[in-house]
Amino acid sequence: MKAFMDTDFLLETETAQRLYHEYAAKMPILDYHCHISPMEIAQDKRFENITQLWLSGDHYKWRQMRSNGVEERFITGDSSDREKFQKWAETLEKAIGNPLYHWSHLELQRYFDYHGVLNGDTAEEVWELCNEKLKQPDMSARGLIRKSNVTLICTTDDPADDLKWHKVIAQDESFTTKVLPAWRPDRAMNLEKPDYLEYLAALSGAAGVKIDSFCGLLEALEQRMNFFEENGCCISDHGLEYVMYHPATEQEIEDIFASRLSGKVVSREEELKFKTAFMLAMGRAYHKKNWAMQLHYGVKRDNNGAIYARLGADAGIDCINNFAPSAEMTEYLNALALTEELPKTILYSLNPVDNAAIGTIIGCFQDASAAGKIQQGSAWWFNDHKKGMTEQLSSLASLGLLGNFIGMLTDSRSFLSYTRHEYFRRILCNLIGGWVENGEYPADEKALAGLVKDISYRNAVRYFGFDGLEIGRD
Amino acid sequence: MKAFMDTDFLLETETAQRLYHEYAAKMPILDYHCHISPMEIAQDKRFENITQLWLSGDHYKWRQMRSNGVEERFITGDSSDREKFQKWAETLEKAIGNPLYHWSHLELQRYFDYHGVLNGDTAEEVWELCNEKLKQPDMSARGLIRKSNVTLICTTDDPADDLKWHKVIAQDESFTTKVLPAWRPDRAMNLEKPDYLEYLAALSGAAGVKIDSFCGLLEALEQRMNFFEENGCCISDHGLEYVMYHPATEQEIEDIFASRLSGKVVSREEELKFKTAFMLAMGRAYHKKNWAMQLHYGVKRDNNGAIYARLGADAGIDCINNFAPSAEMTEYLNALALTEELPKTILYSLNPVDNAAIGTIIGCFQDASAAGKIQQGSAWWFNDHKKGMTEQLSSLASLGLLGNFIGMLTDSRSFLSYTRHEYFRRILCNLIGGWVENGEYPADEKALAGLVKDISYRNAVRYFGFDGLEIGRD
Amino acid sequence: MKAFMDTDFLLETETAQRLYHEYAAKMPILDYHCHISPMEIAQDKRFENITQLWLSGDHYKWRQMRSNGVEERFITGDSSDREKFQKWAETLEKAIGNPLYHWSHLELQRYFDYHGVLNGDTAEEVWELCNEKLKQPDMSARGLIRKSNVTLICTTDDPADDLKWHKVIAQDESFTTKVLPAWRPDRAMNLEKPDYLEYLAALSGAAGVKIDSFCGLLEALEQRMNFFEENGCCISDHGLEYVMYHPATEQEIEDIFASRLSGKVVSREEELKFKTAFMLAMGRAYHKKNWAMQLHYGVKRDNNGAIYARLGADAGIDCINNFAPSAEMTEYLNALALTEELPKTILYSLNPVDNAAIGTIIGCFQDASAAGKIQQGSAWWFNDHKKGMTEQLSSLASLGLLGNFIGMLTDSRSFLSYTRHEYFRRILCNLIGGWVENGEYPADEKALAGLVKDISYRNAVRYFGFDGLEIGRD
Repeated sequence: MKAFMDTDFLLETETAQRLYHEYAAKMPILDYHCHISPMEIAQDKRFENITQLWLSGDHYKWRQMRSNGVEERFITGDSSDREKFQKWAETLEKAIGNPLYHWSHLELQRYFDYHGVLNGDTAEEVWELCNEKLKQPDMSARGLIRKSNVTLICTTDDPADDLKWHKVIAQDESFTTKVLPAWRPDRAMNLEKPDYLEYLAALSGAAGVKIDSFCGLLEALEQRMNFFEENGCCISDHGLEYVMYHPATEQEIEDIFASRLSGKVVSREEELKFKTAFMLAMGRAYHKKNWAMQLHYGVKRDNNGAIYARLGADAGIDCINNFAPSAEMTEYLNALALTEELPKTILYSLNPVDNAAIGTIIGCFQDASAAGKIQQGSAWWFNDHKKGMTEQLSSLASLGLLGNFIGMLTDSRSFLSYTRHEYFRRILCNLIGGWVENGEYPADEKALAGLVKDISYRNAVRYFGFDGLEIGRD
Repeated sequence: MKAFMDTDFLLETETAQRLYHEYAAKMPILDYHCHISPMEIAQDKRFENITQLWLSGDHYKWRQMRSNGVEERFITGDSSDREKFQKWAETLEKAIGNPLYHWSHLELQRYFDYHGVLNGDTAEEVWELCNEKLKQPDMSARGLIRKSNVTLICTTDDPADDLKWHKVIAQDESFTTKVLPAWRPDRAMNLEKPDYLEYLAALSGAAGVKIDSFCGLLEALEQRMNFFEENGCCISDHGLEYVMYHPATEQEIEDIFASRLSGKVVSREEELKFKTAFMLAMGRAYHKKNWAMQLHYGVKRDNNGAIYARLGADAGIDCINNFAPSAEMTEYLNALALTEELPKTILYSLNPVDNAAIGTIIGCFQDASAAGKIQQGSAWWFNDHKKGMTEQLSSLASLGLLGNFIGMLTDSRSFLSYTRHEYFRRILCNLIGGWVENGEYPADEKALAGLVKDISYRNAVRYFGFDGLEIGRD
Repeated sequence: MKAFMDTDFLLETETAQRLYHEYAAKMPILDYHCHISPMEIAQDKRFENITQLWLSGDHYKWRQMRSNGVEERFITGDSSDREKFQKWAETLEKAIGNPLYHWSHLELQRYFDYHGVLNGDTAEEVWELCNEKLKQPDMSARGLIRKSNVTLICTTDDPADDLKWHKVIAQDESFTTKVLPAWRPDRAMNLEKPDYLEYLAALSGAAGVKIDSFCGLLEALEQRMNFFEENGCCISDHGLEYVMYHPATEQEIEDIFASRLSGKVVSREEELKFKTAFMLAMGRAYHKKNWAMQLHYGVKRDNNGAIYARLGADAGIDCINNFAPSAEMTEYLNALALTEELPKTILYSLNPVDNAAIGTIIGCFQDASAAGKIQQGSAWWFNDHKKGMTEQLSSLASLGLLGNFIGMLTDSRSFLSYTRHEYFRRILCNLIGGWVENGEYPADEKALAGLVKDISYRNAVRYFGFDGLEIGRD
């Protein structure tokens, strides 16, 4: 029997262990998609206690606590931080087989040097130990990033954002991790939302462009893209119900937009046409700038109206939307490919069932402009666990070139989540090591080291082309 | 090599073996959903031969025999029981990897003490042995239930049922297993069926309530729910094409119902609206009574018209219906959650592809009224095999709290099917044992024993809250 | 650690190894579905170099090269064969976990006796070695087929085809492998295509039947089916977007066909109705002739318009179409079953997600006219890899009778692809061997040998009933 989460955690063969320890573990982290706050990095935020760090905004944990019948006051309510921590520790015991069990213990090991088990009985000792450690100078936001060997972080930012904090960080030479904005124009696309016109006003103000037509909207966005680019941005990101394709004429789109500007509600068909036009325009703009386009889809958000009314978005009440016709996604990509305007694209579905379809779609749109130009993104959100990652990696390997995969990102709001890269790399090395030990790939150390280092770090560096980021000599 | 289906069947590690033998195997069985006949229990039915017991109503076996090219007369026709048994034994040989192979041999081992292999050559000896054993006094319906250590059984009953046999059983102090009705009002919902009006007449008669409106229908059902409750019922069950959500006004529903009462055929859209309204009303009623709501969906029934014409329903001609939009199911649950009227709910899809979506949906609707209030049901029907159960358990563990899972049920029409609980528990212990041996969960005997006993039995006791059922001291 | 792709490749247990080497490996190959050219067999085509053999038409490899950022001139363009081979070798290194990695090395081992690793460094030596071997007399099309122990090949042929080359082969007594046509009438069904009327003219000419009505079309097809039958055909094949069921009256179908004949464009609904009627008529015709019906569905073809414009169909730009309602497929099969006109049928979906639904559907339509009359086809195209085959076999075993499975086919355009049968048989034996070693099936050598030989070869012989093909004594 292997010891609980020891140095060879998840590494079931000698080859897996060697590949991880010799190569994967030594690579830095490039976290090209996350939701951490640039302000907190700029201000080098500190944390009063482990509950603040772990439970104040982590809706992954909230939903598990609710699943354990914990009352809301111990989750998002006004109970004490100590009480909340106790409830979390008691919940965790039941989470056998869940990534939160592993993430939590990896974080306790790596950042707090705690190698025991967190449960209801040990909660007090862990609470004391963590809070004591959190007083150390290197346990601030920047300290945690430094410890994690992170070379670059992309945050997630609205086009109307002034990127003030990114500028502050960039000007501070004492902090060498690059923190770049990433472009997420969802609010400019979601014309069905009640606050759409208010948003357009804010965007118009930020861009200095009047938005009285769809053309105007695109012009404003182009201004903002230029501004983002000046601040180092080269990645975009979209949150989509699904990747739709409902083409329409320019005039139709202008009419729909004009109708919405006049305060009317758009029909579902109009919404889909508008969003298709929006996404086509964005795709072309990204191609022009050589930005990568991330498409996150397959989510149904804010499903529990009672909780939403109290807590708003990101409250642990999202789920998989299983409507995502591969035909429409293919047609969207083709519309861009036809005119040679398809940018580097990364497809993430929340539904693991889509793995195979995505694996076959990306192969249709590759070209010589980049190795692995069209990527299947790493197992996302609810799939970010051993089973989900293994399935994504196996599917990708079976259908395409795993060797060109750009690998992991945290997608997180927490400064402790860099251990998810470790989790991913262990799973990756275990999979590859298993194949090698089973005679399915040659035991060619150089080739294997190359694959592991590429997928852990170097492919992402090459793929996105960030200024000044090196992959080092082999 | 492990011996064929020996004491450590499916238990691949020492930890798995210990967890199963020390804890899981010792727990009683709570079979909270099945289709056995309360009359047969009340009358303590006996079985003339193994064909009567195995093949007279088991459409799982029928479809396999048809797959083997066996003529229908040897399946549901007028061949002799011995001949039918021979054909079944010959079919079984081909069923490598099929749960029927394992179920059949588990049943032969546990109830008939036969530890060999059933095939065409051994059919004669098994036939003789089983039929001899069936003469023993303890091989009646009740005897088999007693042997299986079953504390409680929920049957599946129509609202118009008089529950006569449940009363007979309840009054018989010589039989200590509780046999309770479960509420399955499908016929009251399926207004598209030709015999709907006849059914309403029967229901009206049973309830003593005139059904001349949708309100009247609900009133009649409420009367019957009270009657079921008096007879110990606290679980409902629904068979749905999919969990739909097509909301409508009360007036629309009354109009649709009135139209149907007048003998008209309803449109598909009217059907969906009516069923949505029906399911909302039922959900609210269950919440009021604190009953659990089981939703079984994703089935297309009676697909082979030629066989259906001869044999009717439950003839082995059902399949997976892969249309089941997660968005509608979520909206249905939310409509109940919004007014705090969502009952304890168990979701079962016949399509294993839905595992991940369900796992994310249940997390959106949990609350402090019960640990694991919203459950993903155990791998159902066609998924009730090693692969299906392992996938359901792994998915549930990856997405939620496996520790709160209420576990297995037989869903069966046979008194031998309690071995399916054994099959489930072996698979559960193998999964958990594997994680522990791989360092993914601590080797904490107390925690593991608790998890295994909870999922095997105690969680279901706690969850449903049957009167007088104890979980014993830890 | 196992050596790279040695004699026990993919065989992880002793039982697996014995089953493969003793039984599976010794069986001949019946390749009942492929796309190789009968002309090339008739002419006993020779290959100038390994690039001609491997890369001239293999769109599986093309899409991987594009995924590696290789320029199109090295894939389908005018670069030298040596350069193309180099690019392929460099791409292959990245294909860890991909079936092309295994197929390529199996082909190098079995046909070229090369047991090293192909990569950028070894490309030169492999190029030289292969091209040298290709000069040997037995490395022609027929030589490769002979080496592979193939008893029978079914090609894929259009109803208007004159089967000239099949006749040439049949008359040549020096070549004993049977090469039979298979009937693929897609062009007669796809009335939405621009060239449909031209195709009808060709079909009319071939059949000597005037096609001025749907009835006339069916009559022409019947003539051609007779002609195909005279040439040994007993298998049909269809490529379908999905298996639809939109029933219509005869008059409606005649009207739709007449409208199309007059040059009009048909609506989507008309297209679906026409295709349903076409497929019903074909199903009935196959039943009459006792032909097997293969339905390949779930594909979206020619997705990248830019590549399609240059290269046309089969250019490596196809993907999974995830719209395939199981309800419609079931209704189609039932429409044939109702009148007892359902032929032997083999269902292949490109979407692996459909495995479970298919497994449950086939069980609804079995009857005594053939063991395993309705089959789930072997893991197809993008699923033709270790993971995909294991999943298809496990799903089929869990839901039906694996022992009646008709097994593997190449679906290939290459004379080297017979190693895919070896790949399949290794995976099959590994799966079965694993079950036996784990105590899930008895270690009954006779039963196991029977299962393995049946699935490898004998079931297909029995199922299709080719004239003069023997299964030998047990």
